Parts: sequence; structure tokens; C-alpha cells
Amino acid sequence: MLTKNQQQTKQNWKQIAKQFETVVGKKGVVQRKEELLVYECDGLASYRQRPALVILPRTTEQVAAAVKICDRLNIPWLPRGAGTGLSGGALPIENCVLIVTSLMQKILKIDLENQQVVVQPGIINNWVTQAVSGAGFYYAPDPSSQIICSIGGNIAENSGGVHCLKYGVTTNHVLGLKIVTPEGSIVDLGGQIPEMPGYDLTGLFVGSEGTLGIATEITLRILKSPESVCVLLAGFPNIEATGQTVSDIISSGIIPGGMEIMDNFSINAVEDVVKTNLYPRNAAAVLLVELDGLEVEVDRNKQRIKEICEKNGAIEITTAHEPEKRMKLWKGRKAAFAAAGNISKNYYVQDGVIPRTKMAYVLGEIEGISQKYGYRIANVFHAGDGNLHPLVLYDDAVEGAFETVEEIGGEILKICVEVGGSLSGEHGIGSDKKCYMPLMFNETDLETMQWVRSVFNPKGLANPEKIFPTPRTCGESANVQQVKQFEGAEVF
Amino acid sequence: MLTKNQQQTKQNWKQIAKQFETVVGKKGVVQRKEELLVYECDGLASYRQRPALVILPRTTEQVAAAVKICDRLNIPWLPRGAGTGLSGGALPIENCVLIVTSLMQKILKIDLENQQVVVQPGIINNWVTQAVSGAGFYYAPDPSSQIICSIGGNIAENSGGVHCLKYGVTTNHVLGLKIVTPEGSIVDLGGQIPEMPGYDLTGLFVGSEGTLGIATEITLRILKSPESVCVLLAGFPNIEATGQTVSDIISSGIIPGGMEIMDNFSINAVEDVVKTNLYPRNAAAVLLVELDGLEVEVDRNKQRIKEICEKNGAIEITTAHEPEKRMKLWKGRKAAFAAAGNISKNYYVQDGVIPRTKMAYVLGEIEGISQKYGYRIANVFHAGDGNLHPLVLYDDAVEGAFETVEEIGGEILKICVEVGGSLSGEHGIGSDKKCYMPLMFNETDLETMQWVRSVFNPKGLANPEKIFPTPRTCGESANVQQVKQFEGAEVF
Repeated sequence: MLTKNQQQTKQNWKQIAKQFETVVGKKGVVQRKEELLVYECDGLASYRQRPALVILPRTTEQVAAAVKICDRLNIPWLPRGAGTGLSGGALPIENCVLIVTSLMQKILKIDLENQQVVVQPGIINNWVTQAVSGAGFYYAPDPSSQIICSIGGNIAENSGGVHCLKYGVTTNHVLGLKIVTPEGSIVDLGGQIPEMPGYDLTGLFVGSEGTLGIATEITLRILKSPESVCVLLAGFPNIEATGQTVSDIISSGIIPGGMEIMDNFSINAVEDVVKTNLYPRNAAAVLLVELDGLEVEVDRNKQRIKEICEKNGAIEITTAHEPEKRMKLWKGRKAAFAAAGNISKNYYVQDGVIPRTKMAYVLGEIEGISQKYGYRIANVFHAGDGNLHPLVLYDDAVEGAFETVEEIGGEILKICVEVGGSLSGEHGIGSDKKCYMPLMFNETDLETMQWVRSVFNPKGLANPEKIFPTPRTCGESANVQQVKQFEGAEVF
Repeated sequence: MLTKNQQQTKQNWKQIAKQFETVVGKKGVVQRKEELLVYECDGLASYRQRPALVILPRTTEQVAAAVKICDRLNIPWLPRGAGTGLSGGALPIENCVLIVTSLMQKILKIDLENQQVVVQPGIINNWVTQAVSGAGFYYAPDPSSQIICSIGGNIAENSGGVHCLKYGVTTNHVLGLKIVTPEGSIVDLGGQIPEMPGYDLTGLFVGSEGTLGIATEITLRILKSPESVCVLLAGFPNIEATGQTVSDIISSGIIPGGMEIMDNFSINAVEDVVKTNLYPRNAAAVLLVELDGLEVEVDRNKQRIKEICEKNGAIEITTAHEPEKRMKLWKGRKAAFAAAGNISKNYYVQDGVIPRTKMAYVLGEIEGISQKYGYRIANVFHAGDGNLHPLVLYDDAVEGAFETVEEIGGEILKICVEVGGSLSGEHGIGSDKKCYMPLMFNETDLETMQWVRSVFNPKGLANPEKIFPTPRTCGESANVQQVKQFEGAEVF
């Protein structure tokens, strides 16, 4: 039964929509049920909640005006980019407004001399590279979803990618931000210069998952495209040898652009779908290494890595310099999740980090969990930085399957933290992992973060119920009691 | 005349000292006037203020207990490392306590496999490299003061150094921190893993100049020592050609370990003192480039840079692979400030940043300022990242000279900001530059930073009167009205 406040709300949404229309026009406010459907969840599709309204601004000023309406009327709101996030960072709560950046896709400035571009948040990750590649530059962070995910979303989740081993994740590539705070102020953080005086609020904002406001203009660092690139694929008879190879490469002082491992299940799933005919189907695991830099440097490191692979018993080594073959090798890796989806009706991607040195141990533990629960777990991961992506395969038609899979995901995360790792490598905490935060942080640590949040977000209206654990236990429905924290707020 | 509160304070300091003695022992509290003398200023010696007490803790717990006493008694306090800072970050205010980390110099853990070390804050920068160099590792950020400055101070000021062009400044090398907040709580920020979930409070803390608390345990990333290192020194007939060479090197895609420029005055000052016989005394400026990496890579890049130098009219090029000659070349650069001190009775080092592309213009403007005021300005700078260090030479026996020099420093900073640069590259804002912050930040931007400060430092007791502009105008004595903001606070 609706509470009195909720009834009031329902009656008032049309009226509220009109207020937003004065800011973004009629076409900038989505309010029809069927049109709102697409905004019910992000890439973590297991929880859904329809927002009350979706606002589509085009400028910083429109965002600020929309946020001010939310602030004045005490409406919880959250930003959303392309909606490809995997931790439920853009999962709506009941009676909330989504501010969606899909109409903010302009490149505002390209400054090749100073190696930076200024973009709006809705721009697709890959478009940034496309805009500067003709001049010999590229934007380094490359999530697997780079052809559909937005830069604003990348900033919210501090996204990684296969090339972040050498060049760092999103936060290392953001020089400055124009943001709208949850109270509707426009604030500039950072600037054109890498190290600005005062507090590093740019760094604080990147990865804050929409809880500190919304970025509306973003200054990104772009890099010079390397002279030479080489991809090397090596198959191994067992996972330990694969892990040892990764350790040996790093110990030798080489930092590849990217270094990925896929297990036998993933290799075969990928070959079934992509048919590269380059992935050895009989290998227990493959290691995919990309080298970039000067031609002499790439050649020398390729030779060294080949030797390291051979020393560790590699059964097959393929190298690719020419773009087509490199793309083919990468296609195998990038299609790994989709290929798992081809084999299993559903899959759940976990995202955890472990110290590289614990790889063999943790993979053994994951195998143990797989056997204990009787669920197949495929392993695909950014091996260079210890970022695991176990895929738990399941069928959601089986009663209780999803709940078990969530439990499995939790067990994997616990192991990651136990060995000195982390709950999340690049997907963020969102709504999905907040209940695990106490595994890594004590009460004082979490309180300190929440104090910082309260500075930007004193009413808690910006992306509530994310990052920080709430009394609700993990696995419980996401839709329970979600507006509880607004009980005290004035409801229009 | 002392106010009533101040008289009270004076009578009470002995009693207060006893409270600190219960935490750090009798030897851990410095209270004799003559012993306090050394703590009156940091490397910015132009302003001085004696602290009431100096506390010398040895552990995190002792720091926390000392800070709690300050919090309870409303005593302003500030952390101090080795006291080599150049922006007055460790300048005391009246009736304050200094918490000095000089007895906290332990290396707590060396983890070569994961390429990290855990240290106490008082450890000298260079000792970190010394501790791991035998195993083939080093700590990258290398301020010119690296043989005397502390890691804790480096963290407070987010220090740079000649090798930060390629590897980034301090913040890029800090994985985790244990801090004591201004209320005396012990909080862990970050950890062993580069990208931790939740807000990046580690990044926020680095560069916060003691206003958010004091770091007591620091996890640093160490790097593998490069296979090959080469230093190249090129003399040029004019500064424009030198600047153009820097731009051309970066445009070619090479990122040297470091890239420094010194002008003719500095070259001759250095040769007079260090007598390297390698710096061309007739050059208008020299460019010093360090290359590191694989041998093949270093050789190839050396050849390219030589060609770029020649194309830009270099009059003399010297290269050094062998350690002794490399050290000699670097000695010239690292002795530049001291050498200026040999020629002029006093000098004032400014620290500003400009976009690389504006180098020739800004150096012309600095020359104009030099002529307008009739003060000699020497130029030494981290050219790769546009970090200028103009040295204004003066004689403090001349009445008003220091005030004029401060004015000159201010004019230089204004130009840096005008061309899209920054007030500070690596020395911090401290007390010296806070009045210039409004040049770069509007009121909302500064307010946002101060809100963040208030979260950690609600009473404003931790390093007050730093970073943020106060009504006092620049150049006015630092000792005026400094405790004003504590008027409302309960004074023991």
C-alpha cells in the first residue's frame, strides 16, 4: 500500500515534470512508462527499479538547473551515462530522477600541442580515440565496453581496461572536471596542468560513482600512439605455469601494455563463437600480452617474453604485428563474456583484485568453490594487475540459482580480500558490493568516506544507497526500504 | 601586550608539556627556547615564529595521543618532517605545537615481490632507494633535497623532482597511508592495491600540507631500476631554441626520465662552484635530458634527441652513460640553487607551472620583470613538465629588498596563471602562496576545498593559516592575527 507521501508524490510527478521541462524542454523529460523501461537497470540487470522521470540535459547549466530542482524538492537523483556499468551504480531507487547524459556528446576542444581534449560526459569512450587518432594520438583507458560506454560513466566508476596495466586506469588520465554538485553549484576541479595546487578533488571525484555530483565537462589526457605494437599469445599446460609467466615478465622489468589470462573453458567458448583459429583449444590457459613502444624495444621485449614463456613450458606461441591479426587475437579476449553467454543461459561477472603473487592459490580456491556449489566458473582476467573476472554460469530459470550465484560471488570476493586484494578492480561498488565494504574497511575508515560524501551531498540526494553498506544484508532484494533515508526530508 | 588568554597560555605551557610527556616521555617534548629555535621556520626562512612546544613521537599511537591532547585543549598544531619545504608549509603560528617526525624513521616492511615498501614518515627520501637498490629497485620521486627531505614532508607537499616527468610526482607512488586525523583517530587510506574501492582519500591526503592530519605509516610503490641510463647535455645559442627542442622531443613521442633547462647565468654559477668542465659557459641555455629503459631503447632515443638538438642549432652536445659522468652532469643541475647562493647574498626560489608551449613567451616576460625591477633573475627549470624555478637574487641588507622580491615572485606567478599554468609545481602553497589562490580558483572552488578540510579538521587546529587565502594581503607579515580564527575556541 502506498504511504500518504507516496500517493502525494504520484499525483505530483506530472507537475514536477513541468518544472524540469522549463529547463530541458518537453523532449528533454521522459515520463512515459514504456520509455522509462530502458532506464530500469544498468549492466547489472539482476535488479530493476523504474525511475519516476528521466531528464536529458544538453549543457552544464541545464544539469545545474535540474539538480537545483531536485535539491529544492528533495528528490533523490542519479547520473547515468550509457548504462553499461556492472555494479548497479546507475540502478534507480523508487521515486527518483535520472539525469542521463546521452545528449551531451560533444568534443568541446582538442589541444594536440598540450595533449588534451575537453569532452562532454556522454561521449562514447572510443570516440575520443577516433577523434585524435588521425593526428597520432589515443585515449588509453579501454574498458571492454569501449564502443558503447560513456566517458562520464568511466569517471564515475574509475574504469580500467586491458591497456591499463602500463598506463593506469581512468583517474590517471583525467586532468580536470567541471562538475555540478548535489546542491546545483558548478565547480571546477583540477585543470589543464597535471598537478594543481590545493586538494586533489579531481582524484576524489573520479570513482565516486555519482555520489558527489555529476561531471559535465571533462579534460582528458591523450597519449601519443606507439611506433610499434605486438601481440603475443601463449598457451600453457596448466594455470600455475601461466601465472608464473606473468610474475616472471613483471620481475624482468618489462611492463606490457596489457597482459590477460583466459582459462580452457573461455578459450573454447571464444573459439566456438569468434573462430579465430589462433587460440589453442587444448591449452589449460592462454596468456595474451600486448607490447607497445619503439620498434627496437618491442622486438627486444617480445624475444624476452618468448623465452620466459618457453622456460615455463608454453605449448604454443603466436605473435602478431600486423593490425588484422592483432585485432583477431584481441577479439577473442574481448568476446569472452559474450561467448560465455552463448554457452550458458546466464552468467554473472565478478570483479576482484588479488596480489599477482597469489594468483595460483586464488584460482585453486575458486575451483574449490565451483566444485562445492556445482556451478561452472570460467576465468578471464587482467593478469598483469591481478584483476580477476570469474564468470559464474547459471540458468535463472532454476529457482534460487541467482541467489546461489550471488553467494558464490561473495565467497570469491572474501578470498580476494583475505589475500590482501580488493573488492573491485574496475567495475565499482555501486549497489552490488556495498555490503562487502566492511570486509576491507573498518567503521572509522567508512565513516571518514561518508563525512566526505556529506560535504558534497549533505541531503544524501545524489545517488543514494550506493557504495556504503546499509543495514540490509547482501543478496536481499535491492528494492526494500530504499527511500528510508529520506523519511525526514520534506516531500513536496 | 599579551591578551588575558595569552597570559593564561604562557603560564599553562609547562603544565601542558607534562601532559605530552605522559605520551612521549620527557625527552620527547622540546620546550627550551634555544632548542625551539631550529623549528621557527622551514626552507622558506623569510618568516619565523617559535612554536610553544615540539613533540617527538615514535609511533602512530603516540601521534594519536598527542593530537588528542591538542584537540581536547584546542591547541593548534602542525606536522613537520625534515623542515626543507619551500612554501612555509611547516611555518609555526603563535602558541602552537609542532609534531615532528624525526624519530619516526623506520622501514616497516619491504615487499619486493609486490614492489612496495612501508615506511614511517620521518625517513629520508633517499634512504628508501638505498634500502632497495641492492635488489634492483628504486623510489622514483627525487626532489633536489632528496638527501635531507622526509617522505612525510614529500607527501604533505606532493613533491616532484627531476625524474617526475616520466614517472609522476609523489601522489603517483603512494599506495596507502595510515593517518591520524585532527581529532586523533587512526584511519587507513588506500592499501596495497593501486585502485581501491570507495573514495580516493589517499590521493586527497597527498598534497594536503598537513591540514587533514598527519601520515604515520606510508606504503610506497618502488620501481625496477632501468637496464640502461644515459644523460645528454646540449648547449644552445638562445633560449627559444632550447624550448623548441623540448617541444620537439615530446612531440616525437619520447618521454625522457627528466628534462631540465638552465640559463647562462646558472651555467656559469654552477661551473664556478662545481667545476664540472662539462657545461658550456658560452651557451645561452643548456638542456639536460636523462633517458632510461632498455639499452636498445635508450640508444635509439639518444640518437633521435641528438638529431632534434642539432636541427635546433645546438652548439655542443655531451652524452654520458658511465655513472661518474652522469653524476657529474646531474651535480651541476642539483647544485644550481646553492651556486646562486654563492654569487648572491640571498635568493628567492619561485615555483610555477606553465604549458610547455608557452615557455619562450614566459621567459621573455620574466626577463622584462627582471629589467623593470632591476633584480637579476636566474632560470632553472623542469622543462619537460613546464615547471619553472626562477631564482630572484637579492641582498636582504638592502631595505625593502625582500618585499620587492616577493612582489616580483607574485608577478611571475600571475603570468604563469594567465597562460593557463599553475601557482605551484611541487613546493606546495603553504603560507607563502595562499594569497594567490584566488588567481586560480573562484570562491565556490575554494569553498568546496574548505568544506573538505572541515570534514577532517572541523576545529581548524591542524596546520591553520595554510593553503587557503585569509583576508591578510600578500607580503604582509606572516605573524599578524594568526590565531584569530581560534578566538572562539576554548583555551585551556
